[in-house]
Amino acid sequence: MKETLNFALIGHMFMGRAHSHALNDVGMFMKDLKIRPVLKTICGIGDGLEDTKERFHWEKSETDWHKVMSDPEIDVVSIAVPGFLHKEIAVEAARNGKHILCEKPLARDYTEALAMFQAANENNVLHMVNFNYRRIPAVALAKQMIEEGQLGEIVSYKGFYQQDWALSGAPMSWRYKSEMVGKGPLEMGIHITDMAQWLVGGITEVVSVMDTVVKERGTADGGTDVVTNDDNTVWLAKFENGVMGIFEASRAHMGRKNFQWFEVNGTKGSLRFELERMNELNVYLSNDGEDRRGFRNIIVTEEMHKYIKNWWPAGHMLGWEHTVLHQYYEFLKAVEGEYMPRPSFEDGMKAQRVLDAVVRSAEEKRWVAIAEIKGREEPGIRR
Amino acid sequence: MKETLNFALIGHMFMGRAHSHALNDVGMFMKDLKIRPVLKTICGIGDGLEDTKERFHWEKSETDWHKVMSDPEIDVVSIAVPGFLHKEIAVEAARNGKHILCEKPLARDYTEALAMFQAANENNVLHMVNFNYRRIPAVALAKQMIEEGQLGEIVSYKGFYQQDWALSGAPMSWRYKSEMVGKGPLEMGIHITDMAQWLVGGITEVVSVMDTVVKERGTADGGTDVVTNDDNTVWLAKFENGVMGIFEASRAHMGRKNFQWFEVNGTKGSLRFELERMNELNVYLSNDGEDRRGFRNIIVTEEMHKYIKNWWPAGHMLGWEHTVLHQYYEFLKAVEGEYMPRPSFEDGMKAQRVLDAVVRSAEEKRWVAIAEIKGREEPGIRR
Amino acid sequence: MKETLNFALIGHMFMGRAHSHALNDVGMFMKDLKIRPVLKTICGIGDGLEDTKERFHWEKSETDWHKVMSDPEIDVVSIAVPGFLHKEIAVEAARNGKHILCEKPLARDYTEALAMFQAANENNVLHMVNFNYRRIPAVALAKQMIEEGQLGEIVSYKGFYQQDWALSGAPMSWRYKSEMVGKGPLEMGIHITDMAQWLVGGITEVVSVMDTVVKERGTADGGTDVVTNDDNTVWLAKFENGVMGIFEASRAHMGRKNFQWFEVNGTKGSLRFELERMNELNVYLSNDGEDRRGFRNIIVTEEMHKYIKNWWPAGHMLGWEHTVLHQYYEFLKAVEGEYMPRPSFEDGMKAQRVLDAVVRSAEEKRWVAIAEIKGREEPGIRR
Amino acid sequence: MKETLNFALIGHMFMGRAHSHALNDVGMFMKDLKIRPVLKTICGIGDGLEDTKERFHWEKSETDWHKVMSDPEIDVVSIAVPGFLHKEIAVEAARNGKHILCEKPLARDYTEALAMFQAANENNVLHMVNFNYRRIPAVALAKQMIEEGQLGEIVSYKGFYQQDWALSGAPMSWRYKSEMVGKGPLEMGIHITDMAQWLVGGITEVVSVMDTVVKERGTADGGTDVVTNDDNTVWLAKFENGVMGIFEASRAHMGRKNFQWFEVNGTKGSLRFELERMNELNVYLSNDGEDRRGFRNIIVTEEMHKYIKNWWPAGHMLGWEHTVLHQYYEFLKAVEGEYMPRPSFEDGMKAQRVLDAVVRSAEEKRWVAIAEIKGREEPGIRR
Repeated sequence: MKETLNFALIGHMFMGRAHSHALNDVGMFMKDLKIRPVLKTICGIGDGLEDTKERFHWEKSETDWHKVMSDPEIDVVSIAVPGFLHKEIAVEAARNGKHILCEKPLARDYTEALAMFQAANENNVLHMVNFNYRRIPAVALAKQMIEEGQLGEIVSYKGFYQQDWALSGAPMSWRYKSEMVGKGPLEMGIHITDMAQWLVGGITEVVSVMDTVVKERGTADGGTDVVTNDDNTVWLAKFENGVMGIFEASRAHMGRKNFQWFEVNGTKGSLRFELERMNELNVYLSNDGEDRRGFRNIIVTEEMHKYIKNWWPAGHMLGWEHTVLHQYYEFLKAVEGEYMPRPSFEDGMKAQRVLDAVVRSAEEKRWVAIAEIKGREEPGIRR
Repeated sequence: MKETLNFALIGHMFMGRAHSHALNDVGMFMKDLKIRPVLKTICGIGDGLEDTKERFHWEKSETDWHKVMSDPEIDVVSIAVPGFLHKEIAVEAARNGKHILCEKPLARDYTEALAMFQAANENNVLHMVNFNYRRIPAVALAKQMIEEGQLGEIVSYKGFYQQDWALSGAPMSWRYKSEMVGKGPLEMGIHITDMAQWLVGGITEVVSVMDTVVKERGTADGGTDVVTNDDNTVWLAKFENGVMGIFEASRAHMGRKNFQWFEVNGTKGSLRFELERMNELNVYLSNDGEDRRGFRNIIVTEEMHKYIKNWWPAGHMLGWEHTVLHQYYEFLKAVEGEYMPRPSFEDGMKAQRVLDAVVRSAEEKRWVAIAEIKGREEPGIRR
Repeated sequence: MKETLNFALIGHMFMGRAHSHALNDVGMFMKDLKIRPVLKTICGIGDGLEDTKERFHWEKSETDWHKVMSDPEIDVVSIAVPGFLHKEIAVEAARNGKHILCEKPLARDYTEALAMFQAANENNVLHMVNFNYRRIPAVALAKQMIEEGQLGEIVSYKGFYQQDWALSGAPMSWRYKSEMVGKGPLEMGIHITDMAQWLVGGITEVVSVMDTVVKERGTADGGTDVVTNDDNTVWLAKFENGVMGIFEASRAHMGRKNFQWFEVNGTKGSLRFELERMNELNVYLSNDGEDRRGFRNIIVTEEMHKYIKNWWPAGHMLGWEHTVLHQYYEFLKAVEGEYMPRPSFEDGMKAQRVLDAVVRSAEEKRWVAIAEIKGREEPGIRR
Repeated sequence: MKETLNFALIGHMFMGRAHSHALNDVGMFMKDLKIRPVLKTICGIGDGLEDTKERFHWEKSETDWHKVMSDPEIDVVSIAVPGFLHKEIAVEAARNGKHILCEKPLARDYTEALAMFQAANENNVLHMVNFNYRRIPAVALAKQMIEEGQLGEIVSYKGFYQQDWALSGAPMSWRYKSEMVGKGPLEMGIHITDMAQWLVGGITEVVSVMDTVVKERGTADGGTDVVTNDDNTVWLAKFENGVMGIFEASRAHMGRKNFQWFEVNGTKGSLRFELERMNELNVYLSNDGEDRRGFRNIIVTEEMHKYIKNWWPAGHMLGWEHTVLHQYYEFLKAVEGEYMPRPSFEDGMKAQRVLDAVVRSAEEKRWVAIAEIKGREEPGIRR
């Protein structure tokens, strides 16, 4: 086994900083890691690149990502740029034999995601999509309790992701253009879709509504421009195992900052998780005594909870960035063990397929089966 | 104006006791009432009738409701029996010139509800449907804040009603038969539908899923019988003003006892209400200072809050039964003022029409416009 | 056994209305009561008396309470006037052989309370003090869980009672005068003291601080007058069983309306109760699985919870006034069974003795043992 | 100004890892820092030293702390060893002209803390005590709102710190010996004392109770040993400005993991903070509209909140370790600006003096004025 693994990171903004941090810190805390990540090259464009390189101890910087792909020193490419660039970079990385850790959503649509998955598979590289919220200890406990059957047979699921920045009066930006970030709002919807499929099973059918609340936004030249994606999307879903789901992805939900919330209801119990209180899990178990049942709030920071023994004593809270660090940990363990990490591009692609169905359902105003969504022959930018 | 108003009550079980209580107590507390209800006749069948008559000070009891309708002493008929009996009783009451306060859901379907509304209108009686949750002070404050424009333009709405008794292993009963209580589950769905339409506006289209989690139940003779209505119903809705809605009515939501919850989101603020904490209202206002915005929990028990000055000092909580008492207060004020009380049969009928569309949508697996739901020529029991 | 019991009520304001309501309604709901209360005489002074008499169906009204005491028809006297009048009325009632249900605090101080207890005992009447918060189903469950040993050995206790009306800018009234309502603030402190002693055991020593935040208040004639009792009182307590306690009674706690809260901590578990969410009990049990322990929120409205089977289905919340109704139920059951109801004057007196020690501790700035507080030879108005 | 600052860290366990992390990461995120910390020497004893050195990129390790003090390369000494070692190390560091960042509690008692403060002052070094909870954005907002007068005049304060590890059945360790960690429990009490004095002002008098719940613990040889410090300490306090305080430090509070909580009540508003939900602040402002006042829950992760612009978008939660990183940031800014950082040893010493009074009060069972606590001529280990 290699002792070190050379990383290149494409992207140096918000998520680029989160990846850089994780690569720096993962070895400080995760004691059973045998392999050590080396921060070789950070690649990006724009003013902050050199600053990020220095602060996060990257060995060198690069502005042309193609050069990174052909660099034989690089073992892994991390992709943390806007979604419309993912496919091209990932496919070239795969062809060059690099392992890949790509930000979510994997691409703008299923066709692109499928192409990425195929390229990675054909080139036998390891691939992962950064559904980082799977890596929260409280979420890991939820997954465990469901698998143990504590909730009985699952009956219904709800997943909401709510923010309010679309109501702030902000001017036009790439976030309001479907050709840049897809429809949906895809960036939030992809998280709650993956979470649902991971916890409960595959979604088979959806029906949805999309709404653009703020239809035009101001531009730098004093004019206005049209918003081409959606502020609110809500949908119903059926799962392969008969579970019924309700979903909402909204960037126009006044008062919510980063409110991701899910609820799983079974025949014997229920559980709820809320990202803004990410160290807690709320659970109801019907086999508690009949006069003393209630939703119990578990603070998931005990030594036996997943990832926690690497950190601090009970009650010392983890923050958002730990989710990315844990994801890198899982990736590095997979490289060590030479197995495919999860969530892989396959998981990313499956979530994307559901969201394509959500968009089509809103456009055609009908139930859409996931099976109706096919990859196109000539992948390209959709719509 | 009359000084007293003679009531007959049809029904003496759970809701019958709640009505009896309200009629006894409304005059104790609501000081501006000029008219006094007189508890003349309670009508019902079964063992508890005489007991309820005595405890709640009814002058006489009756087992044949037809006799009540023809009793010239009776001014008002309150209907608190299962839904499949409402239409017949209400129509006869109207034809006899009695004012009517009827439990919700008004009937089993829109056709029945329409017939009730028409009969009441043609006979010029006052009519009210007991959507009692409109009468909670915290809900009244929500209504007021929406009307004042505190939330800006309304964007989205959620209404959930969740209980868990269908998962208790209970044997077959009338609650599990659509011919008795409709589909839906109608009894819970009707509340959240009326609340939404009252707070936000008329619903124009819906798409839904229904699920029967427990498909068979034990019978007294040791066999099993088939459940013919639904444990869980979820639907999306569009409102006439463009608002998007999500609804859930479930009697199979483990851990929830009487969890009715709604959220209203606008361009300037949001608010939430939870029936199990019925004296509280949670509100976010974006015009609070930008570094100090947050959801605020208002305890709606101050003297200036609706109905409160009749009760106790601030912080002395009201309970569920006050909602019915307040409804009687509104009814009596309407009689005093000789105006139509609200919610009237018209409101009940409109909620019913939405739920008929919800059922049809699930059955036909498509979006259904409310306008598609028509009253039939020959009203009768549906399905 | 008598079939009816004739009540007289002294007092017709806030608490008088609550007593009147309870007497009207207790028989509607509490089905195992064999005795029926009869509302004979309501006694008071001031404008509202006749109105309250009519609304709550009292047979007659009276303005001289001495006449009530000598009325042979009266079996029970309920006392719901300000505390400085309790002793005189209760002693005379006892001497006339009336049973007594007296509002809390029993009196202004231990000496008065002792006199009342002695008079009641000597005359062999049943006596009760209205510590109504013992009668909340969630509190009854707390009591039960403690007695069952679910919390292990009790270690610590906290009892807070917080309101904010003293910060409202209100003018001078009898509430701000120690000669009328005692020091303390006694009216709130008495509740949390009784609750603690009932749940955990007798208090043996206290040390306290008192603070008058608003020292002068405006008078009707445009002047100002001095406040002679305390807005905030905090104290530490030791219990006979070694438990340590913290208490606060404050009418100057901005944001709190009727916030009464207690927490009981033992070697195996903890529980918390909050009056403004009076249908809930929050419990932590260390014998839940080690990775899934948490405070669980029990909604105490199930059929097997105390008093609940008389009311509504699960999740239909009880309000404040039910606490008084339940107290009357307990009183009537004791009359039926010919046993001393609890909380009796003895409980009221014991709570009062602790509060006398609290006041002395603040005045003398030292720990005061409860045993130091003696009844005086000539009871009279203290300080 | 120097461009780099050479750090030595004494201690490599829990807190040593937190300091090492902060020194590694502070420069990644805090963009306005001009000075760069260099991790020169980590000093400690025991197995994990080399591992921590490697993981956190320390240049060298050392087992004799005296050698570190005489190393001319070292600019700053960070002290993260158990409290009984602080004084000796800090005094020697000061004499060698090193700046010092010392863990709390500064020492075992006021005498030791005073000696440290004096040594630092005499040698003109910068000194800081790691009251890291001052550095939480939500706490910084609380401080700001108090200083702005949003709460009016402060009336009362509560500070609780509750954990439950003393009830876990764990065997004897240094944590249960007063000669190692002081009485109190000092380690938790010091946090809530500093927080109170920082937010509200100096404490002048206290009265307390201490309790050892578990009096003996098992030893490795199968015997038992006596616990010589306290599991629970509660105290009342008076502040110089007349505020009344209640405090509790408990390691025997079943169900609590790292529950630090404070509440500040003023004549115009109140606020509350809870460490286990460290990104939230709960505030009540009486100048909100009178029918819509309530405690509002502010999620303190907006760009304009203190420290946040260096981190992630709104709603992306910070964790516990950020508090230490922020403290290092404040320290480095002070070195840059050549001013004394806060909280300095003076703040640490003042908190210690209060806790000495708390211990004496419990021992002598009386109110103790802070002014009674004097430093001894010959500083040494107390008791």
